[in-house]
Order: sequence, then C-alpha cells, then structure tokens
Amino acid sequence: MSESELYSDENLSVVEQAVVEQCLRAKAAARRLAYLSTKVKNDALEAMAHALTEAQTFILEANSHDIKAAKERGMAEAMQDRLLLTGSRIHAMAAGLREVAALPDPIGEVIDGSRRPNGLEIRRVRVPLGVIGIIYESRPNVTVDAAALCLKAGNAVVLRGGSEAIHSNIALARVISQAATEAGVPAGAIELVESTDRAAAQRLMRMNGVVDVLIPRGGAGLIQTVVRTATVPTIETGVGNCHVYVDSAADLELAERLTVNSKCHRPSVCNAAETLLVHRDVAEIFLPRVGKALRERGVELRGDDRTRALVPNVTPASEDDYYTEFLGLIMAVRVVSSLDEAMDHIDKYGSKHTELIVTRDFNAAQRFVREVDASTVNVNASTRFTDGGQFGLGAEIGISTQKLHARGPMGLREITSTKFIVFGDGQVRE
Amino acid sequence: MSESELYSDENLSVVEQAVVEQCLRAKAAARRLAYLSTKVKNDALEAMAHALTEAQTFILEANSHDIKAAKERGMAEAMQDRLLLTGSRIHAMAAGLREVAALPDPIGEVIDGSRRPNGLEIRRVRVPLGVIGIIYESRPNVTVDAAALCLKAGNAVVLRGGSEAIHSNIALARVISQAATEAGVPAGAIELVESTDRAAAQRLMRMNGVVDVLIPRGGAGLIQTVVRTATVPTIETGVGNCHVYVDSAADLELAERLTVNSKCHRPSVCNAAETLLVHRDVAEIFLPRVGKALRERGVELRGDDRTRALVPNVTPASEDDYYTEFLGLIMAVRVVSSLDEAMDHIDKYGSKHTELIVTRDFNAAQRFVREVDASTVNVNASTRFTDGGQFGLGAEIGISTQKLHARGPMGLREITSTKFIVFGDGQVRE
Repeated sequence: MSESELYSDENLSVVEQAVVEQCLRAKAAARRLAYLSTKVKNDALEAMAHALTEAQTFILEANSHDIKAAKERGMAEAMQDRLLLTGSRIHAMAAGLREVAALPDPIGEVIDGSRRPNGLEIRRVRVPLGVIGIIYESRPNVTVDAAALCLKAGNAVVLRGGSEAIHSNIALARVISQAATEAGVPAGAIELVESTDRAAAQRLMRMNGVVDVLIPRGGAGLIQTVVRTATVPTIETGVGNCHVYVDSAADLELAERLTVNSKCHRPSVCNAAETLLVHRDVAEIFLPRVGKALRERGVELRGDDRTRALVPNVTPASEDDYYTEFLGLIMAVRVVSSLDEAMDHIDKYGSKHTELIVTRDFNAAQRFVREVDASTVNVNASTRFTDGGQFGLGAEIGISTQKLHARGPMGLREITSTKFIVFGDGQVRE
Repeated sequence: MSESELYSDENLSVVEQAVVEQCLRAKAAARRLAYLSTKVKNDALEAMAHALTEAQTFILEANSHDIKAAKERGMAEAMQDRLLLTGSRIHAMAAGLREVAALPDPIGEVIDGSRRPNGLEIRRVRVPLGVIGIIYESRPNVTVDAAALCLKAGNAVVLRGGSEAIHSNIALARVISQAATEAGVPAGAIELVESTDRAAAQRLMRMNGVVDVLIPRGGAGLIQTVVRTATVPTIETGVGNCHVYVDSAADLELAERLTVNSKCHRPSVCNAAETLLVHRDVAEIFLPRVGKALRERGVELRGDDRTRALVPNVTPASEDDYYTEFLGLIMAVRVVSSLDEAMDHIDKYGSKHTELIVTRDFNAAQRFVREVDASTVNVNASTRFTDGGQFGLGAEIGISTQKLHARGPMGLREITSTKFIVFGDGQVRE
C-alpha cells in the first residue's frame, strides 16, 4: 500500500489517523536507523537510562494516576503490584538499558556468502526488520525494555500498551524518546500510541507495508486477538502449557526436584509447568511423594482416575484442565502407560513451548527430543530455563511459540532480517 | 485451538469440513515426517519422479479437460500455455524431483550450541516447519515442485491450486502422493484441496494451530488476498517492482546491457525490472541510447517530462505507472537529480524485491547497498539473478518480499524452523 493511499483514506477516524501518522513517522525513522552507528545507538541507550533516573518524580507521579484508577476499579492486588513503579523499579529499567547497550550490535553481521561461477559475489548480511509494533499489557517496564531492544537492533518501534498503564507508559515513552532524539536517534524511532481506543490497536495491526512485524506480549487473550486480527506478520509469543514427563526410568529424587522447580519456582510465567505426566511403572512410588511435595508448596492437584487412586484428595481433572495454562499454583496430573502416550498427550494439549522428560534411559531421551514438537525440549532440566538470559542470548523480547522466523527465546538477532548483496561487473543472464 | 474444537464446529460447510480433515491428516503426517530418514525421503522423491512419467497418459488426459475449459472461457493464449502440460513438461517435473532428491537434507543440522555456566548443554537444531499451505495459480508444475521441496524439508503440504488447473492438479497430486506413500512416506504428507470453492481456501487460511505457514504463489491479487485474509502466518512472495538506477558515474555501455537484460530477458517474472531511473548528468547521452535499445526489443516507454524531452514518442508516466509491476514489455522511466532522489523513489514506489545500481563510484555503491531496503541489492549485475538456483540455494519455493522469517529467494532451509534442545543432570532455577 502506498503512503498516499493510507493518507487519503477518508474513512479513518481521528484516532486511526493519529496511528497512521505515528507509523509513517516510525517508517521514516527506520530508514535512517538501519545504518545508524553502534556508537550513536549505545550513547542513546545510556542517555535514556540517565533520563529515566533524572525524571523519576515525573514518572512516579504519572504512575500514581494509573494506580489510583486501578484501585478505584478494584483491580486485584497482584495486578496492582505489576503496575506499580517505584524508585528501585525505575533504577532497574535504567540498568536494563545499560545492559542492552553492552550487548553486541547484531546489524551488519555477514551471515554467509559465496562467489558464483559467473563471478558474482553474493553476501547475506543482517539488517533490521524495520518497524516493529509491540502490543502489550500491564507492566510499564515493557515500554522501556522493548524500545531498547528495538533501537539496538536498528528498528523503529510503535508501542501500544494497555489502558491500565497508559499514564505511566506515556511518561516513560516521552522521557526515553526525547533522550534518544537528543542523542542523535531520528525522531519517530520510539512512538507510543496514546489512545487507548480499540480502533487504535486495530489500525496498528493492519498497517501492512508500513509496520513490518507485530509482537504481542501478554496473556493468551491478548495474543489470540492479535494473531486473529492482524494482517501484519505477527510473532506469537508466550503461551506456555508446559509438561513434565516422568519416565519409567527416571531418577525419582531428581524427578521430584525438577517437578517442584518447574511448577513452583515462579508459577505465573510461561515457562512454568502446568501438567505432570507420570509413567504407570513409577506412579505408585512417585505420585504420593511428589504430591506431598507439591501440596507443601500450596499446589492444588487435578488428576485422572489413576492419579486419584494413588494420591488422596485430588480433584478430578477435566479435559479443559489439560488445555489450561494455569499460571498459578494448580497442576494437572495424569498417569500414562508409555512414552508414546505421554508424547501423544503433549502433542494434543501442549502449546509447543517447553517440554521436559526426566529419564536415565538414553533411547527414551533421544525419542523425546526428536519427536516432541516444541520450541524447547529438555532432558533432566527444569522447564524454567527457557529464557533469553539463561540461554545466553542477552536480553529477551519474548518467547516465540510459533515456528516462523523465530522459535523459543528471542534476543536481538531474532528482531532482525537479512538482505542479499550482489556485486558484479556487468553480469547478465543469458 | 484443539482438534476437537475444530471438529465440533457445527457451522462448517461440507467443503470446509473436508479442508479441516485434510489439514488434520497433514498435521498427523507432519509429526512422523519430522524424523523420517533422508533415505526414505529421497527414495520417495525418486518414486514420485518415476510415477509421473509412468502416468503420463493419465495426466495429459486430465490436463486436456483444463485446456478445453480454458478455450471455452476464452483464456488468453499465453495463459493457456502456462496451463498446458506435454510429455516434455512432465519429464521436466520428474527431473525437478530428482534434483530435489540430490540436495542436502536440511533437517537435523546443529545450528549452534553452548555449555552454560550451570552445566546445561544447549543445542539449536533445524527441524521442519510442520504443515505448509501453498495457495497458487495456473502452472500445474507448482503442485509437484512445492510437494517435493516440502517433503525434502520434512514438512507436510496442503496444496490449493487455481480452478483453471484443477483437473491437472488432482491428477498430479494423486500420482505423486500415492507413489510417496508406497515409498514409506506417511499418508497425509501431500494433500490437495479438490474443491475450488472460495470457502475452501478461506478455511485453509484460518487453520491456526494446524497449518504452520502459508506461502501464496501467483499474482499480486492472489498474494494480497492471502496476506489480508489469513490468520495463519504467511510468507509474502513474488511481487517485484524492481528498479535499475543508472548513476552519474555509470559505465554507460554496461548500464545499457544491464537495463536491457533486467527488462527484456524474461519480462513476465518478478525479478524483471519495471522502472529505469537515470541520473540527470548522464541522461542526455544515456536515455536516447537505451531508449533505442529497449524499443528495438519492443519495450514501450513511459517517462517523466525530462525523459520525454530527450527521447521521442515516450508516453507520459502516471503516478500509478511507477507503482506498477508491468510483467511485460513496458518500462517506466524517470530522470533523477541525485542518488538520494533515486533512493527516495525506490523507497516510495518499490516492492523491496531487487534493486540495481550501475556505477563505478565506490561511495555511491556503498550507500546504495547500505541504504536501499530490499531483499536483494545489486551493484553492476542484472536484477534477473535474484533466484534460488542462481544464488546457489538449489531449488526455490518462492522469493520472499517480506522481512520476517525469510527474505529473498527461499530454498529448503527457508522452509524449516529450529528447536532448542537442553540436556541437564537435574539443574533447577534458584
């Protein structure tokens, strides 16, 4: 679609028109960002970090409006805490910016190349994606984190946060985008959609030819809405219905430790385990033991009949339970008769995020690794490791659960594209 | 979405239901295809090649129905030729299958890996995408080519060709899928949607959770429909509004050769040039000369005022002409005052496919390569080289003009995904 077409659409509302203009500003900025020097980008990240701490009072004041509104609407305490900014949280955001500055610049990397028989020199080099749209909920720190990662990888970003954090997001975006511009980053590199109208998000999701990719960050509802509404290419992130499969050949002490860590270490995140599958040969010994350990940590168990026969007071698991990402202290449990049955269960109910087998059997481990279709497949290691930092990718912009473009934790490289460069001296095709 | 949800949707028509079932068969096959041995895949490709030549009479008979219908509808001769199968064309398809068999298997490649400080061994390995939907027009050979590439990369494929080739496509798909199954490929690996109803294509485009990616192949209309309708991730291919920019420092003899080759070598394809941009400093000498050479090859020129002042009988170019992929013997021409003006023009009107600068100036070449945003940027080499075979990728499933997942010519590697494998010995997160 040409820019003039977008501009000349008289059916656009004022809200949509504003989004169109922001996206076009971002696109114009992206052209220059693509070859901005690493030094300018890093200096800008440092300036943004400095500006955040300098503007602490301004940011906390804006945040207090969001918190006030949240209380008035009776938002749950846990959600209010996600929304809350404090001096130390602002310092943490600034530290995050400096960490991104310290990461290697992915842009300009020569990925591969060859000389063809006709003398053409072909190079594939890493370039930015262009304009990235981020649609997210609650945590205002995403505003800063996402802007930093996009900038470091040479992308312009159009941010669209949730209405509950709108005052905080506007304040944060103003502070960092002003600091970035003053440090030599083109204006338009960091745009925040200030309208909380749904039409604004809908417009952003349909800016084909201007926005190159959308990355939704948030709950399953948000992600599904974006995936189903957007015509701009989207990277689906985050939903993790992860399984722990305890094989007949598992070391049961290790299996208990891994189950408890995968479920309880941080139950609200996508790489926490939701369902425990136990081979029938070890169920009689293992289930009472792990059941006790999980209950001691406050986990509610929902099991099939075989589980319920072995562990007292387990609620019957419904079909829906096996599909559910509980994101809390609930775990579905099922006894399976074989490795195949475990893999069939994972294939049917899983979300292709992270799957774990606990076993000492080489063949079982090999089959699980080969045959289970997920972003990350673990043998004898907690599901909680699926994370950009843990994998050594540096910061992370999300965890992709789709197979296109990027799969699993996404670092800077995953928000880039490539370009072929062909040098010749007059070659034509015969 | 769960399979049961898809099945239980009572609003599905019979046509849609059939597509759902085909996609689910493909998904079931994909699970096994992911770890099918290279030998079985190659043997199957050989068997498919053999079966095609054996079934030549059956295929030509089916094709004759399509040709008859095309004649009755008064289809243009050129289009009829695209649809026509002959003995030699069937042999060419069989040869293509054998070429795919000879390519290295991309699946199983260990892309990178590391040992983390906590002892975790992390590997990133190449895996299939899963189920690929191909929506295409006219040429029946796409049925065979696409099936072969998908199979070699371990993917199941759901093919949806155009109504004009439906008899040919059904015949080809039956022959190759039967041969593949007999050679040990799981049934469902090659599915062809036999209904030409639009609802069938629409259903295919919305099979999220079952179809992993859609690749449209055809004209701009088809591609735009898929990009705007699909909720399944899509790789946009093929539209090429490519430019030749003749710089002030160009070798004009070389510039003429490259312009003529880029425009005339095969004008109907996406890597043919559509617009010629000429620096004003060389326009007076170059334009009359290249105008003559292009006209001798039957090219109609549409130019701006400056071009029309230098070349006789040039039609005025409209704004729309600069946006148009003519796919034929028409070329838009414009005189520009600088390299920047040329790059601005390309940025505004181009489709990010292939862009060429002709120059002897190192700095101009460097700036063009760095600043022009396209899948392929050429210096002193015909635009016609943007092709999987020419780039040494082996066969090609299309040329991506988007930035997500794959950009430029796509070979086998571009229809794969990756998977993290994590080996531990009981590591948990503290």
